[in-house]
Amino acid sequence: MNFSPIKAGIVGGTGYTGVELIRMLSTHPSVKLTRITSRKEAGTRLDQMFPSLRGRCDLMFSDTATADLADCDVVFYATPHGVAMADAERLTSVGVRIIDLAADFRYRDHTIFERVYKMPHACPTLNQEAAYGLVELNRDEIARARIVGNPGCYPTTMQLGFAPLLRAGIVDPLHLIANCASGLSGAGKKAEVDYLLCEAGDNFKAYNVSGHRHQSETAARLAEIAGTPVGLIFAPHLAPMIRGMHSTLYARLNARGMVMSNDALQALFEDAYRGEPFIDVMPWGSYPETRSTRGSNVLRIALHRPPGPDGQGDTVMVLVAQDNLVKGAAGAAIQSMNVMFGLPETAGLTQLPLSP
Amino acid sequence: MNFSPIKAGIVGGTGYTGVELIRMLSTHPSVKLTRITSRKEAGTRLDQMFPSLRGRCDLMFSDTATADLADCDVVFYATPHGVAMADAERLTSVGVRIIDLAADFRYRDHTIFERVYKMPHACPTLNQEAAYGLVELNRDEIARARIVGNPGCYPTTMQLGFAPLLRAGIVDPLHLIANCASGLSGAGKKAEVDYLLCEAGDNFKAYNVSGHRHQSETAARLAEIAGTPVGLIFAPHLAPMIRGMHSTLYARLNARGMVMSNDALQALFEDAYRGEPFIDVMPWGSYPETRSTRGSNVLRIALHRPPGPDGQGDTVMVLVAQDNLVKGAAGAAIQSMNVMFGLPETAGLTQLPLSP
Amino acid sequence: MNFSPIKAGIVGGTGYTGVELIRMLSTHPSVKLTRITSRKEAGTRLDQMFPSLRGRCDLMFSDTATADLADCDVVFYATPHGVAMADAERLTSVGVRIIDLAADFRYRDHTIFERVYKMPHACPTLNQEAAYGLVELNRDEIARARIVGNPGCYPTTMQLGFAPLLRAGIVDPLHLIANCASGLSGAGKKAEVDYLLCEAGDNFKAYNVSGHRHQSETAARLAEIAGTPVGLIFAPHLAPMIRGMHSTLYARLNARGMVMSNDALQALFEDAYRGEPFIDVMPWGSYPETRSTRGSNVLRIALHRPPGPDGQGDTVMVLVAQDNLVKGAAGAAIQSMNVMFGLPETAGLTQLPLSP
Amino acid sequence: MNFSPIKAGIVGGTGYTGVELIRMLSTHPSVKLTRITSRKEAGTRLDQMFPSLRGRCDLMFSDTATADLADCDVVFYATPHGVAMADAERLTSVGVRIIDLAADFRYRDHTIFERVYKMPHACPTLNQEAAYGLVELNRDEIARARIVGNPGCYPTTMQLGFAPLLRAGIVDPLHLIANCASGLSGAGKKAEVDYLLCEAGDNFKAYNVSGHRHQSETAARLAEIAGTPVGLIFAPHLAPMIRGMHSTLYARLNARGMVMSNDALQALFEDAYRGEPFIDVMPWGSYPETRSTRGSNVLRIALHRPPGPDGQGDTVMVLVAQDNLVKGAAGAAIQSMNVMFGLPETAGLTQLPLSP
Repeated sequence: MNFSPIKAGIVGGTGYTGVELIRMLSTHPSVKLTRITSRKEAGTRLDQMFPSLRGRCDLMFSDTATADLADCDVVFYATPHGVAMADAERLTSVGVRIIDLAADFRYRDHTIFERVYKMPHACPTLNQEAAYGLVELNRDEIARARIVGNPGCYPTTMQLGFAPLLRAGIVDPLHLIANCASGLSGAGKKAEVDYLLCEAGDNFKAYNVSGHRHQSETAARLAEIAGTPVGLIFAPHLAPMIRGMHSTLYARLNARGMVMSNDALQALFEDAYRGEPFIDVMPWGSYPETRSTRGSNVLRIALHRPPGPDGQGDTVMVLVAQDNLVKGAAGAAIQSMNVMFGLPETAGLTQLPLSP
Repeated sequence: MNFSPIKAGIVGGTGYTGVELIRMLSTHPSVKLTRITSRKEAGTRLDQMFPSLRGRCDLMFSDTATADLADCDVVFYATPHGVAMADAERLTSVGVRIIDLAADFRYRDHTIFERVYKMPHACPTLNQEAAYGLVELNRDEIARARIVGNPGCYPTTMQLGFAPLLRAGIVDPLHLIANCASGLSGAGKKAEVDYLLCEAGDNFKAYNVSGHRHQSETAARLAEIAGTPVGLIFAPHLAPMIRGMHSTLYARLNARGMVMSNDALQALFEDAYRGEPFIDVMPWGSYPETRSTRGSNVLRIALHRPPGPDGQGDTVMVLVAQDNLVKGAAGAAIQSMNVMFGLPETAGLTQLPLSP
Repeated sequence: MNFSPIKAGIVGGTGYTGVELIRMLSTHPSVKLTRITSRKEAGTRLDQMFPSLRGRCDLMFSDTATADLADCDVVFYATPHGVAMADAERLTSVGVRIIDLAADFRYRDHTIFERVYKMPHACPTLNQEAAYGLVELNRDEIARARIVGNPGCYPTTMQLGFAPLLRAGIVDPLHLIANCASGLSGAGKKAEVDYLLCEAGDNFKAYNVSGHRHQSETAARLAEIAGTPVGLIFAPHLAPMIRGMHSTLYARLNARGMVMSNDALQALFEDAYRGEPFIDVMPWGSYPETRSTRGSNVLRIALHRPPGPDGQGDTVMVLVAQDNLVKGAAGAAIQSMNVMFGLPETAGLTQLPLSP
Repeated sequence: MNFSPIKAGIVGGTGYTGVELIRMLSTHPSVKLTRITSRKEAGTRLDQMFPSLRGRCDLMFSDTATADLADCDVVFYATPHGVAMADAERLTSVGVRIIDLAADFRYRDHTIFERVYKMPHACPTLNQEAAYGLVELNRDEIARARIVGNPGCYPTTMQLGFAPLLRAGIVDPLHLIANCASGLSGAGKKAEVDYLLCEAGDNFKAYNVSGHRHQSETAARLAEIAGTPVGLIFAPHLAPMIRGMHSTLYARLNARGMVMSNDALQALFEDAYRGEPFIDVMPWGSYPETRSTRGSNVLRIALHRPPGPDGQGDTVMVLVAQDNLVKGAAGAAIQSMNVMFGLPETAGLTQLPLSP
């Protein structure tokens, strides 16, 4: 490394996304973590909260309210919704770039954000210029951005899975279904009874099928991709595991799609993601497993087309697996940072999945 | 109990379905387990294979080939497919009733069985008179039957979930989707790498989405219910848990369905299952959890109707949860036995779910 | 059942011990659950808090402060420590028997309770007459008691494992070691970060090895059994499972013990527990698994004697497994109730373990 | 990196230790994986067996019988016992170094190996010069070695935990107790019923307490460290998790030990492991959690001294946690390789633990 490292700060480093950012930035070849803040834990050593960091990290949490972030090159917000947008004006004005892992900058139309998250947007003008941090769909915009809104974990799988079909205009955009399952880490490090091992272990259930906020984020972005409104049913489920997210997507082929062979569908996806370092389009008919992505920034995709009652089926299924904390959160954020700073896109993201 | 107990035999008692039958029949007030057979374990005490039975069961496995089952009143087959049909003629001719937990008697049309399971049917004539053991949909037929084909675990959830909608003729029967997740016990007690804790733990994946045999069983039975052919995509998934099955069903409302209110849809299900001791129609918008059924014969159902892009959604979702080894297998078989022998339908099936 | 059922109340029915009492008492042939109280949940239906009870239980939580428990025959306290002793005087004076699942009546010497639990004992006189609810060691006292202090979960395994050795005087009583592991349900239904699936899952750790309160309870009771002071190291560990408790006990054989053969040691345990319906002394050298007790009141014991550097070892190991919520809590309490009311000791406790 | 990379081969790369070596060597800055062999999978792409490697590894399994390993600089044996010693003569004679992750070179006295593993040793002379790969206790010998016998997973925890006490001569060496728990990956990727998720999940049990082969390895090495015979009870247990190993060690203080303060005991360990990059001596009274080591080469140690019946206790407890597949296997092997080749000891081993 010939250049001085990028100075990175993390606001709100006590949750699962925060510690994941710390884990990956600590071994990033071009980054120096200089500041990590917490409202509640100011003065606590990081390795006291996360014993996994013992011996590898001497940092202490600074107070979010008073920490000087202006000397950072980039600040990651691993906070609740609403925090990043409150700081954005001040920090960008002194040249600090912002990557928000919450929802503040995920919506091109800030009024949807306001309706869904039930809070006024603090900086609608900055929101105009913010880039949506899904690198594979949005690389150029990110490269130019001062602010990146990192996508939700579920939306990443749904967009990367539906995008090639919608762009090609071969499916009914009004009846998309995404049946998804997530490990518990997606719910965050919250002391709630529902997330106890005794409640969530050996259990499976759906939740929020009629009103999850990721539905609005995804539907809005898919509509841009399709160039037409989309209808999306998004049914998230909780699976009894720590990490991992699996989305089973269903799209009905339209007349143009029905004449396509399975090979042509497969080629559509392989072309769409050729050269992408973190997208693995598996052979037709494969089954991506969440564990094959554990701890890494890879997202795997496989296509299926179940037979219909009279032979050739009219529905294409897209199976998508990722680690919700990496490609679904911290890893994607670092990937965006790499793009913003002109680093190799895979810098700091080369770890292989942990198996078993 | 004033009458002599029903003498029950189990063929193939070494798997998970077998031990579950033993667990429940051992405390059934009107049954005496008299014979349990195994091809491989003849001469082994049951409690040596299943330490959970120590002190509660003195039986030994008999040899399947030579065991005299003719003195049983009823014989349960917890065997691979093909075993029950080979015995059926001989046993029914001496008055023994048969409940097969494999697929031999699940298809009204034995040629579908032959195509799907790739073996000739040994007794097509007996298959004609066999009843399909889904008590809630088929009670009278079971009461008269000498042979019952116990439904597959997934098909139970799909049929009980779709039946009210299809009977009412308010959904498109050609585009049903069932996105299901099962615990590992559904795969049986097989020494395969894929089912090791290190492989299946902390993991989620789909399997067999284009050709699971339960698709054919379900589609055929749903077509009978609907009185018209059905199209069914059945996408099973493996969740990292021991017991539990959760099905998320999607049906597109047709014109008659679209005018129904959510209350009317809810009433449709409540009416369909009123008085059923093992079906719990939960309040509209609930989320049945698999763990709320652990170890018991209950099956829980809840309805949802996610909004569409322009308001009122056109898809009804049915969430169904059960214990795959109980209502999905051994419990359902005992429920059928109770009906066949004129016992109270809940006899031996009154245990509450284990929680947590 | 020719007699009117026993009217049972539960104070503090919202935790794991509470729901387990409900599960087992609901199917007890001689008990009618008449009242369940909660400080926080008064007015809530039980099945709203515990979906596993839906369709099987119409009770509502009463307010602990105002509920009239005087018309109960027996009241179970599934509360924090200190609640039962506050009610004991009032209820026993009107003939209600009390079974406390907390620590209020676990110590013969109430001053130890006061020191360990850091609260004054509310009724030292009643404590004198309270029986310690370990039926296998204390059956007669329990039969006569108005108040029973149900043992802690760990102490049950340690006492039943060490008792035969201490009674026989063949081990060094001053250097006992109990290395134990428990599932998470032992920690209760508390919204604490440490017990989240993401924190406790796929993890193993020790806790409280120098000061767990069950050490004092066990040491005091073992001293009574031994007739001499005992030294006990008790090292509890958390294992990533819902239910189950496994204790690995080590005792150094003294001169009298060293001359005993392994057969003689085995006979010692078999004699000690002959006829006990819930104690399973397994063959020498066996390995009891916690899952073989899941959901049932059985406790399994097996003996080992690892070789020493010069042949015959001088340490006897006792392996003990139980379900911490059943034999370690609710099941033991019901077993005591059966003894107190002259019922068959196994009444309501005949369920077989859930396997797998 | 100015030098040409070390060419590394792996024999037997299809198990959990094999894939872990692949994971870590793939990102090692000074190593090039050139050859991976398998008896059964010759011709299979690695990423077909391990989807976690898709897109990151183009290697194919070679046939173990015919693969040319002579052009490797180092060969790792992740095979059953007995394979490495058969190749050792041939490979070392052409300058290839060998690191065996099986037991062939773990015993200084090859006759103990022969007795315990029930096979003749193929090269007792080479065994004389082989180094035992516990770097922290044996760094110099490893630096000079052509052959390294990598320690068993349990023995690593027991030796690093007991060594400072035995060296200081402050405990009774004849009555050491190691009560250990391991995740299932320690049992390897074997298709056995006992290791199924349904059998091993939600379960805890001991195994092999009287005759585990790691007892002999550990006792022999501890005797060298102590300079006197040792008596060791080693009681392994299976915990329902994928990775992680936790050892709870008990040693009785002798007269010299009894006068030591807790601070002095703590200093003993801190001095013993000062500067060791992979040993974390935690503050007195801490509780190392296995998950705090997940996927990394760190081993954490904490000391306790439970009170005795009359105050100051006479037993010191050492708690040790590691990832059994990393510090307990593949990571330790790479650490030895680094030492053998004069690389920085932490090269390729800098990943932080995965949390949660």
